[in-house]
This record gives sequence, C-alpha cells and structure tokens, in this order.
Amino acid sequence: MKVAIVGLGLMGGSLALSLKKLDFIESIVGSDHNKIHQQEAIMLGLVDEIVEFEDVKNYDVIFLAIPVDGIIRALESLTDIKKSTTVIDLGSTKTKIIASIPPSIRENFVAAHPMTGTENFGPSAAIENLYKDKAVVLCDIERSGELQADIAKKIFSSLEMKKYFMSAKSHDRHAAFISHMPHAISYSLANTVMNQENKHNILALAAGGFRSMSRLAKSSANMWEDIFRQNRENLLEAIELFENELTILKGHIQNEEWEEVHKNIEAGNRLHDILD
Amino acid sequence: MKVAIVGLGLMGGSLALSLKKLDFIESIVGSDHNKIHQQEAIMLGLVDEIVEFEDVKNYDVIFLAIPVDGIIRALESLTDIKKSTTVIDLGSTKTKIIASIPPSIRENFVAAHPMTGTENFGPSAAIENLYKDKAVVLCDIERSGELQADIAKKIFSSLEMKKYFMSAKSHDRHAAFISHMPHAISYSLANTVMNQENKHNILALAAGGFRSMSRLAKSSANMWEDIFRQNRENLLEAIELFENELTILKGHIQNEEWEEVHKNIEAGNRLHDILD
Repeated sequence: MKVAIVGLGLMGGSLALSLKKLDFIESIVGSDHNKIHQQEAIMLGLVDEIVEFEDVKNYDVIFLAIPVDGIIRALESLTDIKKSTTVIDLGSTKTKIIASIPPSIRENFVAAHPMTGTENFGPSAAIENLYKDKAVVLCDIERSGELQADIAKKIFSSLEMKKYFMSAKSHDRHAAFISHMPHAISYSLANTVMNQENKHNILALAAGGFRSMSRLAKSSANMWEDIFRQNRENLLEAIELFENELTILKGHIQNEEWEEVHKNIEAGNRLHDILD
Repeated sequence: MKVAIVGLGLMGGSLALSLKKLDFIESIVGSDHNKIHQQEAIMLGLVDEIVEFEDVKNYDVIFLAIPVDGIIRALESLTDIKKSTTVIDLGSTKTKIIASIPPSIRENFVAAHPMTGTENFGPSAAIENLYKDKAVVLCDIERSGELQADIAKKIFSSLEMKKYFMSAKSHDRHAAFISHMPHAISYSLANTVMNQENKHNILALAAGGFRSMSRLAKSSANMWEDIFRQNRENLLEAIELFENELTILKGHIQNEEWEEVHKNIEAGNRLHDILD
C-alpha cells in the first residue's frame, strides 16, 4: 500500500513516523505547500519523498492532515482519483467537511478525527507514538465505500488506536464541548492574565496548574480560526453553557454560600472518576 | 536544625522528602490530625516520628502545610513558642493569614507560597523534587524577624527554589489571576461537560487538551473552598475580567469577525513567549 500525506506538520509528520513501522505500507510520500516544511520533513526522514499536490492522486491512500478549511479546498481537486483510492481526513470538525465532498468521490472518503495532538506544530513537532493508544472517531462511516472503510479501520487498528463511530453531527457537538470550547477558554484565560499581569509576576506565580490551563492557548491561529468557523454554532452553545456554569459558581462565591461552593467543587472533582 | 511539619499531604510530605537530603536538618517530625495520614507518612518514611500538634512547639522550624483556614486556627495555638522559633506557612493566600498572626509571634512568622503542586493529595501523593527549580513567593518579609527570614531563605535556597518577594496584598491579587481563577474555570468546565456529555463520549473525545484543562478540577474541595473564601474579592474580580475577555471572543465568533478571532488567538499565543 502506497501512502501520500498532505500536510507534514505535527499530525501528518507524526502519522508518517508511525505508518513507517507497519509492514503493509510500502512507501510514504508527502506534500506540503510550505517549502521549509518540505525540507524539514525530508531532513527529519518523515517521508521518502516530497511530491506536488497534483501527484498525490496516484497513491492508494491519501491522508489530509491540514487545517479544516484546507481539507474542503483539497477535496475539490481530488475528483479524478481512482475508484479504489482511499482519502482520509484528520480534521477536528466533520459536518462541513462531509457536506463539501464532491458526490463522485463520496465513497472514496473516510472522515476521521484522531483525538491526539500537542500544542506544538510543524514537521519538527512530529513525534513517534502520537497516535498509539489514543481514540479515533470515524464519522458517517456507512457512507464510505466498504473497501475504503476497511482500509481506514485496518490502518487505525494497526496504529493501536481505539475506534469510535458516530455521526458527523454528533461528533461536532461533542467536540465543541470537549475540545473546541476549552480552546476558546484557554485563549481568553491567556489574554486576561496578560492584560493584568506583567512577565515578572506571571513567572513568579505560574505553577503547573496555570501552565496546563494555558497550554492550549499556544495552539495555532491558522488552524483554530478554521475550526471555530466550521463549528461556530455548537461552539457558541458550548461557550454559553460554560458561562452559565461559571456564573453559578461565581454567584455562590459572591453570596458567600460556601457549602454550595464546596458541593460545586466536589461535583467538578467527579470528572476524574471518568477520566482517570 | 530540628523541623516539624504540620500537615503530611502532598505539600508537607514532599517537603519532608526534600528536607531530608539537606545536611543542616537534623530531624523531621510530622503532625497530622488524620490517623490514616499519620500511618501512611510513617510507612512511606516521610518523617522520623509523628508528634501531637502541641509538641511541634519544641522544634526550631515549624512548617504549616495545611489548608489556609487551618493555618489561621493553628497560629492561635502557637503563641507560646520560643523567641527563636521560625514558623513558615505554605498557604496559597496570604493577606488574611498575615492579618491573623497573633502580634506576639509576628516576628516568628514567615509567609511563603511555594508555586508548585500536583492535583493529587495525601501522603501517598508526596514526591521528591516537588520544590526543586520552582518559585516561592515570600510575602511581607520585612515584618518577619531577621533570624526567621534568614532561616526561611536558607531553606528555600537549599531546596533550589527561586525566591520572589512581594507584599501579601500584591500576592493575593496576582494569585487570583494566575492560580485561583483558573481553578474556578476548571471546575466550571468539568461541570459543563459532565452536564452535557456521557462517559462514552467524554472518553471518545477527550484528548490531551481537555485533560490538561480539566486536571485542576481534581483539586480538593476542602482546600479550595478555603482559598476561594480567603481571596474572595480578588477572585471575583479575576473571574469578571475573564468573563469579559471570553465575551469579546464569543462576540467575534457570533458576528463572524474571523480576522478579529484570528488576532485574539494570536494575542493568546503570545503568553508562551513569557512562559516557554
């Protein structure tokens, strides 16, 4: 199986590193519009070769590891792929991407969201095992061709990922709460603190807690502007429900209802019965 | 130098592990009102001996590593210490604690806030090197006795901590923004997600980002209720300024002002010019 990866940043580069180890992958080429990324990807040995975007059509499996608006544009240029080609996107939103697939290549397409990443980006951010033991959400899989669905499942299973299946619509609502809204919060937290505090005090008082809350605020504007746009309605709903929740806690603090504050904190603690 | 540590949880237990390695510390005893913690601390070898709270008065240096309301109560019982005794608290708030020091032992007291911790608690959470290379904020140090200030500085320097000096008032305002408000956000984020999402979807979609944003929501209700109460006014101001910031970002998303969203994200990114 010959693989082409479009986008050689954190996600695409790390994917290349992991796919390399699989015995059924014969070769991996990469495409990236950024010349520096092309050079870095070759120097770091992420891919065997850099090809033009036009040429990825000749490969058995094409991964789209680029920002979500870019995925929609790329799909428009892939209408002349072979019937057996598999196109897998790794975007963080799904509804608008799936709605934009040209009907003639709908069966070629598998919509996947691997739930992994770091706050770093570019080919030099690529790390081995970024995908291992992580979840991947496959959306509207019944609308992918049987061959293509099987290939995607085989690849993600070989990467030792846990597969979840849901509709694109469900995915986008859940992702708004569990991923996109937390990013918005992290940006606002970072901006609040920088508006109020100077470097000296931030360094004096930033312990692990603040660092972990503000880590997501490092995430790329190019990538997250697109995600916020594509998942705008769900994101706005999630932000509003979060605002309501914070208003409740603030109200208890304001009114010195300490027993209620205590209960609110204990309720929050229970998340870790699920996550740990 | 003989040391007594009141409170053998994460902070006190880890402190014991670090102090042990210093050649000028002769012995370390611990006091904890929780019998299970007493047993664990001995089993884990954190302290040489468990003593009653009454007996900590006989030691050269007394660390108060307990929730901030407990520190205020403990101080009331320490009025009969020797003139040479040093009492160091490790509380996350400072103004109310300092205001509550009985005047007769004001010079014995050094107000310290080590900017370190994890979301875990209890003696079994104690780890070596929790303090190493971290910041410690010493508040109103000019009001501590010269002997006591020197002893505290010597200990924190020996733990390889970076010392910062500020007034208790400044400390509490900065801590509200950089530590206490982010905890409030994390509790509200955890509660929002649990109200909207079931376990299956949380596990499917929780990548590293959500885990790091919600990690603080694991922090103990006993400890954080006290901190929120003691730093109530600063915390409310910080929450309100954060709410305003989130309203701005939400407004841009609502109005589809994507260039503004992009700029807002890029502004948030700049925090990491300071922190990294």
